Amino acid sequence: MKVSKFGGTSVASAIQIKKVAAIVKADPSRKFIVVSAPGKRYDTDKKVTDLLIELAIAAIHKEEVEEKLFKVLDRYKEIAQGLELDDTICNVIEEDLRSRINKDQSILELFVDNIKASGEDNNAKLISAYFTSIGLDSQYVNPRTAGLLVNDLPERAQALPQAYDNLYALKHLSGVVVFPGFFGFTPNGTLRTFDRGGSDITGSILAAAVKADLYENFTDVDSVFCANPKVVNHPAEIEEITYREMRELSYAGFSVFHDEALMPVFKSGIPVCIKNTNNPSAPGTKIVAKRKNNKRPVTGISADNGFSILYVSKYLMNREIGFGRKLLQILEEEHISYEHTPSGLDDISVIVRSHQLDPEKEARIMSRVLNELKADDVHFRHHFSMIVIVGEGMNNSTGLAARAASAIANTGANIEMINQGSSEVSLSFGVQESSENKILRALYNEFFSAVTVG
Amino acid sequence: MKVSKFGGTSVASAIQIKKVAAIVKADPSRKFIVVSAPGKRYDTDKKVTDLLIELAIAAIHKEEVEEKLFKVLDRYKEIAQGLELDDTICNVIEEDLRSRINKDQSILELFVDNIKASGEDNNAKLISAYFTSIGLDSQYVNPRTAGLLVNDLPERAQALPQAYDNLYALKHLSGVVVFPGFFGFTPNGTLRTFDRGGSDITGSILAAAVKADLYENFTDVDSVFCANPKVVNHPAEIEEITYREMRELSYAGFSVFHDEALMPVFKSGIPVCIKNTNNPSAPGTKIVAKRKNNKRPVTGISADNGFSILYVSKYLMNREIGFGRKLLQILEEEHISYEHTPSGLDDISVIVRSHQLDPEKEARIMSRVLNELKADDVHFRHHFSMIVIVGEGMNNSTGLAARAASAIANTGANIEMINQGSSEVSLSFGVQESSENKILRALYNEFFSAVTVG
Repeated sequence: MKVSKFGGTSVASAIQIKKVAAIVKADPSRKFIVVSAPGKRYDTDKKVTDLLIELAIAAIHKEEVEEKLFKVLDRYKEIAQGLELDDTICNVIEEDLRSRINKDQSILELFVDNIKASGEDNNAKLISAYFTSIGLDSQYVNPRTAGLLVNDLPERAQALPQAYDNLYALKHLSGVVVFPGFFGFTPNGTLRTFDRGGSDITGSILAAAVKADLYENFTDVDSVFCANPKVVNHPAEIEEITYREMRELSYAGFSVFHDEALMPVFKSGIPVCIKNTNNPSAPGTKIVAKRKNNKRPVTGISADNGFSILYVSKYLMNREIGFGRKLLQILEEEHISYEHTPSGLDDISVIVRSHQLDPEKEARIMSRVLNELKADDVHFRHHFSMIVIVGEGMNNSTGLAARAASAIANTGANIEMINQGSSEVSLSFGVQESSENKILRALYNEFFSAVTVG
Repeated sequence: MKVSKFGGTSVASAIQIKKVAAIVKADPSRKFIVVSAPGKRYDTDKKVTDLLIELAIAAIHKEEVEEKLFKVLDRYKEIAQGLELDDTICNVIEEDLRSRINKDQSILELFVDNIKASGEDNNAKLISAYFTSIGLDSQYVNPRTAGLLVNDLPERAQALPQAYDNLYALKHLSGVVVFPGFFGFTPNGTLRTFDRGGSDITGSILAAAVKADLYENFTDVDSVFCANPKVVNHPAEIEEITYREMRELSYAGFSVFHDEALMPVFKSGIPVCIKNTNNPSAPGTKIVAKRKNNKRPVTGISADNGFSILYVSKYLMNREIGFGRKLLQILEEEHISYEHTPSGLDDISVIVRSHQLDPEKEARIMSRVLNELKADDVHFRHHFSMIVIVGEGMNNSTGLAARAASAIANTGANIEMINQGSSEVSLSFGVQESSENKILRALYNEFFSAVTVG
């Protein structure tokens, strides 16, 4: 039995939803269908979720809401007409939306969340109605009724253990279950949303709860690529990748799947398949616990910019038990998370995402490091990129680091940082932002070109 | 004005002490002479310090001490006779030793320390007497009289700030000052010793205190080598090296100078020269704040074995602010210091010296990491070596990491860990212990051979 999740572009229009229906019909094991809100139909289009946010903001500012409400309703109406459904479902959606707009605004965040979540919720109702209209035994299930219990974290809710037990019962429902993504309810009934892209998370929780054989994630690409296709021309497609590899590649260019979403299926060992709604016969990319096939030591290369380096040096630093821990504590107290901490005997660099810093924070950190840790030198450097080479087969591949470092050196770029740990599946390099793309291309050529071309 | 320190082998016999006198006479700016206890005269010989420890232990166990006492006295007598000194100085030494043996034993550690420190103290008296006998204006100065104040750390005392002001006054003494290394006194008069090899520390403190132009450290090698001469045949000699480079090289094979000893001169910017008592005309190795000369990007390569790796993985680790800090805190609570912490997105390796671990400690750490940090996997691996390539010129040398990694790959060995941080002067590799020597030789050939041979 499979849980199949369809992303925003897969459910953006009547044409797309007909493809979804064909996919569901084609395989009776596709019992649980998790849907997003209607996404973009074309590049300059607006997602329904964004229309809903505009609607919520207008309501909060006591502005005229009718125009904004109809923009949302028009999207559903267009879909319903294209699917040859009568007005019933659109009346249900309009009533639902008006009731959400008239809700209590005393906690603004909950008010907005509730309107945002209607995007998925009403799309699920519409899609279920369509399935029924074409003779597919189907029912819409609401996360509240189903018991998708979450904790109280705003816009980053996490499923409670009880949710899995509750959702397991859905197995016994007859026909196809259409389930809205993106939100759940706290034990006292408050609607809470997952992180952006959270329909992936709903699908993953549901797959783990019903102990699915496969979690299918339908999107608009045939597969995950070995490198960012915006930088590398026609990169190779990944057939099979492990959870760990997928996580390590979660830097830019690999945003095809929400990484927090992997957690529930990873813990249950349920494989994931990323497939294309527009080309369902393509095999897609499979995410598994263990790969049989290790043709290449490297599975993918990802890169991201916007990193800063905090450099601290102190004579005899390595004799001081607790120095590194205290340094990390200072960063923690400033709510800064870090990526890596390469060190010498007497110095340590901390690589952080630059967006977490501002001049005031930097000054405060530097002053604390000088005064509390009695460092000899402390400074920040900015505009770095991290390039990560990922592969389960890397660890036993003699000479791989040499090949990577040589490929980078041949571009003329300098390596500012190297990080590779024991048993790791990744090797990361810190480089100047300006060299990022040429290095990504050079590494792709080193590890993939021969195989693709030859 | 110079502070010149002579190590154990440089003051082990009458012949050696005559060389010291010639060196002191040859340069009138050598005003402060810091001396160790008599060291080994030949490979299988015993150092006076070790004879003194045996004597102290016998005294504690209420065993016969005369034989052990005479073993010590005989060493001084042999030296005094070789230097044609009369019995006076040896009588002074005997009286001093007997008084130390009869001291209060209520705190055993202080009793042993006091006897151990007599090695340097009495050798300073003897050498000063010899200098005087050959017409050199000279005086022995006791660290207590001079005000070398230290804190109360057993066997790892550190000089107090006041010590520097007190010692500055020694500048005004006439003639050559002979000063015993290895110990100082707490403000309430307790004798405390420095770490082993602590005469280097005394010399460095004295050099900083009297604002010397140069701190000469006389030992039994012509210079510091680029790599361990026990592994690499006739490695190149280092002419000039920075404090930072010297520190980073303080792994095995570079134990020629106690690294804590560099601190006071490093802080005062006083250059250090490591010279050979047996070949004083050789230029030696100079340790400076900044090097003018950067002919080679790499200054030295050091290696050491006996490392273990603690590996921890947890899905979404990098989303958890504080994970790394909490892990280091667990190690800190077990009094374990670490070398490096290479990390991926979801895993972290902590490299530690294996001697800090035992099976019980490992089990305790693993259980805490699993229970408190909810890690998915945690385990220890043992028998690793760290190889460190050091050079101030490395950071701007494109392709250096590639050369190093290629040289290692060509030996057929696998790289378990790589660590290089921003602005660092070092690049470290973790490898299997069994590959250490062949890798050290390969790296030496890569970075030094061409220059030496060609």
